Amino acid sequence: MNRPLSTRVVTFARRPNGMPDASCFSLESRPLPALGEGQVLVENHYLSLDPYIRMRMEAKDSYAPVMAIGETMVGRTVGQVVETRDAAVPVGSWVVGRLGWQDYSVGTKADVQFIHPDRAPISAYLGSLGSTGITAWIGLVHIAGVKQGESVLVSAASGAVGSVVGQLAKARGCRVVGIAGGARKCAVVRERFGFDDCVDYKAPDFTERLAEAAGSGFDVYFDNVGGPIFDATLPLMRLFGRIPLCGLVSQYNAAEPYGVRNLREVFNKRLTLRGFVLSDHRDVWDSATRELEQAYAEGRLVYEETVTDGLDNAAQAFISMLQGGNIGKQLVRIKAA
Amino acid sequence: MNRPLSTRVVTFARRPNGMPDASCFSLESRPLPALGEGQVLVENHYLSLDPYIRMRMEAKDSYAPVMAIGETMVGRTVGQVVETRDAAVPVGSWVVGRLGWQDYSVGTKADVQFIHPDRAPISAYLGSLGSTGITAWIGLVHIAGVKQGESVLVSAASGAVGSVVGQLAKARGCRVVGIAGGARKCAVVRERFGFDDCVDYKAPDFTERLAEAAGSGFDVYFDNVGGPIFDATLPLMRLFGRIPLCGLVSQYNAAEPYGVRNLREVFNKRLTLRGFVLSDHRDVWDSATRELEQAYAEGRLVYEETVTDGLDNAAQAFISMLQGGNIGKQLVRIKAA
Repeated sequence: MNRPLSTRVVTFARRPNGMPDASCFSLESRPLPALGEGQVLVENHYLSLDPYIRMRMEAKDSYAPVMAIGETMVGRTVGQVVETRDAAVPVGSWVVGRLGWQDYSVGTKADVQFIHPDRAPISAYLGSLGSTGITAWIGLVHIAGVKQGESVLVSAASGAVGSVVGQLAKARGCRVVGIAGGARKCAVVRERFGFDDCVDYKAPDFTERLAEAAGSGFDVYFDNVGGPIFDATLPLMRLFGRIPLCGLVSQYNAAEPYGVRNLREVFNKRLTLRGFVLSDHRDVWDSATRELEQAYAEGRLVYEETVTDGLDNAAQAFISMLQGGNIGKQLVRIKAA
Repeated sequence: MNRPLSTRVVTFARRPNGMPDASCFSLESRPLPALGEGQVLVENHYLSLDPYIRMRMEAKDSYAPVMAIGETMVGRTVGQVVETRDAAVPVGSWVVGRLGWQDYSVGTKADVQFIHPDRAPISAYLGSLGSTGITAWIGLVHIAGVKQGESVLVSAASGAVGSVVGQLAKARGCRVVGIAGGARKCAVVRERFGFDDCVDYKAPDFTERLAEAAGSGFDVYFDNVGGPIFDATLPLMRLFGRIPLCGLVSQYNAAEPYGVRNLREVFNKRLTLRGFVLSDHRDVWDSATRELEQAYAEGRLVYEETVTDGLDNAAQAFISMLQGGNIGKQLVRIKAA
């Protein structure tokens, strides 16, 4: 191929106050200088859009440092090495890494992990076989210590993480209830992902329906959303229940944080709440990936993707994802098919 | 002694709405029938008044069943066996147990534990060497897993549990900060209990002072209170901090529960919150008691008591304790000295 001399880049243009809009992003062109020793050039095929990116747009550090204005938007991509100055990463290698919202990225071996395009579609390594699948595994298995036959509740159940949580729990003989927004998503959660039940948080009788679905209560609540849904689940937990906190998507855009009123249940029921992020648990990534690849090979791990075409549509796709417009993993196809 | 034919009893007369008042309690006289096989009669010397009793007055079960109207008020006492129909519990034995607000109690061996009046004053076995000391040990050592040299924050620091938490943490080489209400209590926490610092939550600059006292943050927050103080501490926790929830005294009388707004910190800092009660952890009671008796013998465990005289003043003492009128363990001396 002809070596590209420049790349399109989406940069962080303005800090949002609440929900981001198009003016928070800028599409620019930047030169691609010659590679230094040990560097590789990756042509990005897919970009993953995830809620944590919204937190990096805050003015204040949360669990990760914030982005500076003018910086390339952070995000994981899957792509192919097209030029290399590291013999350990040959041209043609397929990799994933946090390579940013751009057509081409310069990185080193430390920035990427190799993937196996013969085992699954490359985009799956941004989702169910990649960071979101591993996140689901860590929360359910490592943090919550789910046991055979327990009752498990998952919010954002049609999302990239939630849908994997439910399938992993079902494979362990658990009863699994999801929470999702709207009848269409709930149908997907039940029919495609095989949850036992799914409750629509946008329905007026949400609280009553959730209490019905809870039966005698939940042993594990895998929380992806925080806020009022988190609050509503606390009274439905069983004694000694565990609540891994994987994110607070309902709160990322809230100007005023929601006040959680049912925390006394944590004491009454002797619950354990624990926040976690993927990067703290590298020691279990291999175990997680092996179980996920195995489940995929056996047809026990299905996933949905919402694919938006074109880097120039990435900002809009990100906003739509934050508003719940996606089912499953929200991706941007960067390289035209 | 002449066998008593009746006992005074404080019963639960009316369910409170918010802070209890005198009309919630009734002082009555009840006959003491002859003992059945296996029963013992205990003459109570001291009664322990604790915040959990307030929760048993609710209309709805919390972590323990509620009391029925007309029932004897629940509470732990220390006393002496004055009549027995169980050879394993001879007359003259000193015991503690949940024997209720009354002059004399009928129970069995299963209801009491023996104590050692030669090792410490009998009232200490209701406090620092009894259930409150063991509660402190369980939260700090067993639930939070405190480590040498960590930074520890304790609310209700002048209270029966909080004061022991601080002393156990100091003995482990931790830096210990307390939170208490008023300059007088804070002085006791620093000077008598040896905390490194104590912040007055009633002071107008509480939040600023707490942030100063936090330095680079807390590894453990032993929470006895919940509500706004709990909320204020969340942003001051260090990465991977642990928060044992021992009670929510600020919320027991709240008609409307406080909404906790800083829960996103649990995710951001990957904190662990865990509710616990004494009775779930009987397996570690002996370890806890040994360490507490040892610390007392070495003069490294001091405690304060607020003693109210007379069973007829128990209700008022209980209300005063709920309003923070006590320093250290709130006791009622039932048997006149």
